[in-house]
Parts: sequence; structure tokens; C-alpha cells
Amino acid sequence: MNDKLTVELISVGTEILMGNIINTNAAFLAEQCVRLGLNCYYQDVVGDNADRLKATIDTALGRADIIILGGGLGPTQDDLTKETAAECMGRKLYMDEDSKAAISDYFARTGRTPTDNNWKQAMMPEGCIILPNHNGTAPGCIIADKENNKHVILLPGPPEELKLMYTESVEPYLRSLMKGTIWSKTVKICGIGESRAESMIEDLIDSQTNPTIATYAKTGEVHIRVTAYGEDEQSAKKLVKPMVKELKSRFGEYIYSTEEDVTLEKAVVDLITGNGLTVSTIESCTGGLLAGRLISVPGVSDAFKSGLITYSNKSKRKLAGVKKSTLDKYGAVSKQTAAEMVKGVAALTKTDVAVATTGIAGPDGGTPEKPVGLVYIACYVCGNVTVTEHHFNGTRQKIRDNAVTSALNLMRRCILEYCSKKAFGGE
Amino acid sequence: MNDKLTVELISVGTEILMGNIINTNAAFLAEQCVRLGLNCYYQDVVGDNADRLKATIDTALGRADIIILGGGLGPTQDDLTKETAAECMGRKLYMDEDSKAAISDYFARTGRTPTDNNWKQAMMPEGCIILPNHNGTAPGCIIADKENNKHVILLPGPPEELKLMYTESVEPYLRSLMKGTIWSKTVKICGIGESRAESMIEDLIDSQTNPTIATYAKTGEVHIRVTAYGEDEQSAKKLVKPMVKELKSRFGEYIYSTEEDVTLEKAVVDLITGNGLTVSTIESCTGGLLAGRLISVPGVSDAFKSGLITYSNKSKRKLAGVKKSTLDKYGAVSKQTAAEMVKGVAALTKTDVAVATTGIAGPDGGTPEKPVGLVYIACYVCGNVTVTEHHFNGTRQKIRDNAVTSALNLMRRCILEYCSKKAFGGE
Repeated sequence: MNDKLTVELISVGTEILMGNIINTNAAFLAEQCVRLGLNCYYQDVVGDNADRLKATIDTALGRADIIILGGGLGPTQDDLTKETAAECMGRKLYMDEDSKAAISDYFARTGRTPTDNNWKQAMMPEGCIILPNHNGTAPGCIIADKENNKHVILLPGPPEELKLMYTESVEPYLRSLMKGTIWSKTVKICGIGESRAESMIEDLIDSQTNPTIATYAKTGEVHIRVTAYGEDEQSAKKLVKPMVKELKSRFGEYIYSTEEDVTLEKAVVDLITGNGLTVSTIESCTGGLLAGRLISVPGVSDAFKSGLITYSNKSKRKLAGVKKSTLDKYGAVSKQTAAEMVKGVAALTKTDVAVATTGIAGPDGGTPEKPVGLVYIACYVCGNVTVTEHHFNGTRQKIRDNAVTSALNLMRRCILEYCSKKAFGGE
Repeated sequence: MNDKLTVELISVGTEILMGNIINTNAAFLAEQCVRLGLNCYYQDVVGDNADRLKATIDTALGRADIIILGGGLGPTQDDLTKETAAECMGRKLYMDEDSKAAISDYFARTGRTPTDNNWKQAMMPEGCIILPNHNGTAPGCIIADKENNKHVILLPGPPEELKLMYTESVEPYLRSLMKGTIWSKTVKICGIGESRAESMIEDLIDSQTNPTIATYAKTGEVHIRVTAYGEDEQSAKKLVKPMVKELKSRFGEYIYSTEEDVTLEKAVVDLITGNGLTVSTIESCTGGLLAGRLISVPGVSDAFKSGLITYSNKSKRKLAGVKKSTLDKYGAVSKQTAAEMVKGVAALTKTDVAVATTGIAGPDGGTPEKPVGLVYIACYVCGNVTVTEHHFNGTRQKIRDNAVTSALNLMRRCILEYCSKKAFGGE
């Protein structure tokens, strides 16, 4: 693995440089490159300035084999990544008719009229590989100098455009440059913190060589990536397999998937549809975000019928039939209210599975007994109700995101439990 | 503006380099430095490697007045930021007895015992200013070379330690170095694309000096930042004001705010609560995300009562009273269904304002007549219903995000229209 290729990431944009946005693109690309087994020694951020961008690209060309630039492909005068990268690589720009047609199409489909500067996005460096943009107008490109083994890859700045283009076009290209193969598998865990997860595999981390193990903390989740290098896919897979088995035995039911494209919400939706169940939601503090996560999964319409957002006490009573006496005695944020909410929505929508959230997301509204961050989550599965109590930290946004993740995980575990009982004739 | 000081940010750490964590420190420091009026031309990320770190610091010393390093002050052998920065500035390390005592104290307070390598954190570069760490053990420091006007500032990597140390110690130091001040104002626009917005102010961009103008594309929004430099805050503000006035006259009702902390959803919620109105939502394709955006605004509970997610036709009929004949004749994704949905939820929840979304988010479900990306949005304000038709591009996620932003903007414009009619005695 010593002849590994090196990659340098350059993020272009005044917005990142001035702190208007957080550089999530660099984290995404770094994670992907590491996964492929590329060495990454430097990341740079530079503004939309031709001289400084040129200096940064030239420096990177002196110390890396592959340079991935993100940002500065837009239609405005500020955007000069393509012009500058082409200059560094000794290429001229030409009007690419296919890209021009794709931009025309994009505007026609969205019912808008392109302005003159939109055509700037169809100007491409000579001899480059053009990367189609299926999430926006700016095509990306790869300028390769095969003689000197240098590859400059230009991607658009908006994260959803960059990610899709990376997955569709850049990863296959990078794989084609490499000797041997990298294979990785991600064990996705929910319901356990990162430091606890890490301490449970300290021995494996300390003794790692090939495969390697890396943990990544996500909101309410921990992903453990096992990566092996082999001469071919088969031999790399063979190295990954026993380690994944070991992780499965250590983390058991905390693992919700080991598949790349399975998110927690997809795992839950798959469990629901795979067992022929239907689902509804009732949300207070998460205010629609939980339904939003479930509905982000394509094909959910077979199972998801309706959801309620009952933000006020009145709507908890009127829409979900929560008793006034329960609200008066225990309050809206209580185990009892969560349970009545979930039973109410299941009855109203006649679904097999239902989930409820009620909590205090802050920044105001906390009391010593019920502080900001207190959230109750209830899950109903075919007559059985489970309620859990959570104490989350951080901002309103973070509390709500953690509540959504915990609700999805509770659904997963309750449905699994129900199905395993059913399989053993328990119900 | 030419005598502005320049700052370069260097983030040190393999975790950032490998994409395990997102570099929020750089965004925080960049925003703070821009606020102070420092020029920031480069950010770098480098791992815990002495040679590469030294090369990065040396490069930064050649092009910036102030260098802020975050990370690598920990107790382990990997942590070598202090040693390397001291070497670059020609300083030796010495054991600082005050720092040693502070570390002892910290361990005593948290009930733990320091290990030998913890004392490494008390070794400081000669002649530096020591910055106390009130959130951890590693002190920071400033190594100043006043003769050459270079300032190297070392901060710990954990965000809560870095932020507190910046606020307590670094900002006052930076202010002491500066002449003059920077002031900026952001004009936030919705309902117009970035390239069209920019073409509307091309003349202003071309002739900019002080103030400067920059446009930022957000999902469905464009932000235009006007920034001026002045001897004091007053004179900088005076330069910004006429430019903001000019932008207001050009973009008119497309502008939803010029306040830093006002998001589109906050502008909508402020309009609702400020006019004593109440609001409800009914969502099909956006599946809760629209309610989620509204509920992200603290204090929304005064106005938001309930929301419905009516994903199936049956739930559109049962919960919102959409007529079967309407669904049969026009389909779920139609102007007519959107209108009935919004009237239904307004009647059910007895709210003044309501909003409905129905569309095809994909990836499946599109037809030639009703392609993926077709979304109808309806807004109800005190009896009046407005329905708009949209054609969005991109992934399921992007279509839903754009639908949410468009729905918020439609709400804003309908409420404004209603209020202005009311003010002129129209209703």
C-alpha cells in the first residue's frame, strides 16, 4: 500500500473562507477518498480569486497526484475555477455543445429562461472529461495529464450536486487509476455513544493493519468502517468479512445495517413494508421532521398513510384524543401524554405502527423538573406501546434531530421485537 | 481598505483530514475574523505531521500577518503544534509553572489524576502570551514577532475550548492590533434565481470598491452581502446604507429580510405572530418538512397549532375533506386538490393562515403529463386561496427542499398582500 496515490482537496469559495457556510464538502470528499485508500495530506480553502487560486492549485500539483476542487463553477463572474484550473494545466476553454444543450434542457424543464451568463457553464477545458450534473446546471470535469500522472477534478459547490457527481462519475474514475482494490463495509450503529462504542473495540483499533477500522460520529449514530486492501475485490472482501462478523457479535442489536445505501429511516421503512405493516406519526417537539425523514425514503407511500403535528394541547386533544385530565395531571411533556398520543393516532389512522414525540426543544420553556432537552418518545406496534425518556443536549435544532433519530431507532427495535415474538408464536 | 491585516487559519488534525469530523472550528474563526474586518485569503488543514505542519506554517507566515492554529495541543505524542510553531518562530519551549499549576487544579476539580504526558501541555514557547483554558487542560498561546508584525495564535482543537478561548483572549488581542472597522448588511431574497439576481446588479458589482457586494446562493434563496470598511463603525455603516437602499429599490418584494438572524421561516413566523394570526399546514410531497421549518423558529407555538401529513388519497379525504370527485377528476397532484386541502385544514384547525403542498418528488411516480418535480402549493389567508404551480429539478430531497422554500415564500407574499389590502380598507 506504499505506492498509494495522494489526493489534495481544494474548496473554492468566499462563503467558506468567510465562515458563511461550514465546509461539509471537504469532510464528505475526504471520507470517500480515505475509503478508496487514497492518502490525503492537505486540504485548502481559497476564495474566488484567480491569482490565489492559481497559486493553490500549483502548490497542490507539486505535492499530490489527484486534486479535487469543489466550488466556483457557477454562472457568475465570481466563478473562475474552470478558467484557472485550465490555465494551470495549459488548456484553453471551448464551448461544449452537449453541455450547452443540457443547460437549455434544464431551464426548459424548470420553466425558466437562461441568462447570457448561464452559457459560461458550458465552456469546458480542451481535452477534459465532462461530468454531467444531474442535480443542477454546472457540469464538472476532469483534466488529466497522463504523462505526469496528474488529475485535476472540478466539482460544483452545492453539496447535493457535488455528492451526486462524485458518486456517479468521480469514484469510478478514481478506482480506474488505482492498483489493487479497496473494499469497505460500514457497520451502522444507533443507540450507543461514540466513546462507548470506541472503548468496546479499543483492542481491534490498536491492533489494526489490514483491514483498518475507523469510527465516524453522526447525529445519534456511530458508523464503524472496516476497510481492506487487496489485489482484487475478492481478496479484499475476504479480509473485511471476519472483522464485520466480530463487530456484529460485539454490537448485536445496536446495528441497524451494514449496507452503504441504507439509512436509519430506510431500515425502518424496509422493516415496515417488508412485514406488510402500515405506519403513522404524531409529533409535537419534532414538528414534522420525523415524518419528513420517513417520507424521504422512496416507496414509503405503500406504508405511510398520514401524520399529525399536534403542537398545541388543544390539537393533541382534538386530533389525537389525548384526555384533558392527562394533560392537566402530567403535562404535555410526559410519558402518559406520549402514550395517549400514539394510541390516538393509531386508532384514527388504523395503522399497525405509530410513533409519537413530545418534548422541550428550547431555547425557552424548560423548568427544573422538565428541563430543555427532555423528550418522550412512544411507539405503538399492533397494540403494544413502549415509551422512552430522553435527555438531549445542545441547540433546539440538535435536540430535535436527536429526538427524530431516537424515535426511528425505537421504531426499529419495537418492530423487530414484535416480529420475533410473532415468529415464535408469541402473539 | 488596503492596510487591513490578513489572517490565515490552519486546522491541525488527522480527524479533519480524513473526514471523520466536519471542520466547524474554521467556520467559527473565519466568521469572527471577518466580523473584525480582517482579510482571510486562505484556510488550510494539515495532519499531525511535523514536516508538513512546518511547511504550512512557513507558507502562511509568508502571506499573512496573523496565523491562527487550531488543534494539536493535546498531551499525546501526536500533538506537536506548539513544538512546530515555536520552531517556525525561532523560540524554545520552557516549563511554565503557572500552567502546570492550572493543569493540577483542573485534574483535582474533575476528580482525575494527571498522567506524565499531561505536563507536556505546560511547556510553552519562550516570550509567548499564555491563554488560559477555562474549558479544558491545554493552555493556548500567542507568539508575537512585533518587529516583523507576525502573530501566531495557538488554540486547542475541541470546539468548546477553542470558542471560549477565542472569545475571552484572542478577540481582545486582535482588536488591539487593528485600525478601522468593517460593517456589513445582508439583503435576503427569495423567488428569484442567483444568475438573474446577479444580472440585475451587474453594474453595481462591476463598479464596487467600498462597499463591496457579494451574492450567496442558498436553497431557493439568494443573499447579497454589502460590506464596507470605515474608520469607525459609524462611517462604515454610512457607506453600507445607500447601497442597501439601492438593492431594496431593485428587488422590492423579493426581499424578505435584511437582518442577520432572520431566516425565511422566521420572517414568515414573524409576519404571522406580528399580525396576530394563527397557522396550520397540510403536506403531501413535503411530508412534514414544511411544518418542521416553521417549528424550527423559537416562539412559533403562539401561532402554530396543528399540521397534517396526508400522504395517501384516503387521508386527504378523511382528514382534510378533499372530495373524492376532485381526486378522481384532477388527481392528487393538481391545483384543485391543493386548494381543497388548504381549505380543509383551515376549516378543521380554525386557523387564519394555512398552506398545502402536493407534488411528485420522485424518483418514481412521474408521467408525461405530470412529471417528477411538479408541485402545487396552495396558501389560504382569511378566506382567500392562492395556488401556484412549480417545476423543480434534482433529487427527491432537493425537490422537497425547494417546495418547502417556495411554500414559505408564497405564505410570506400572500400574508403581506392580505395585510396591505386590509390596511387600505380592502377587506
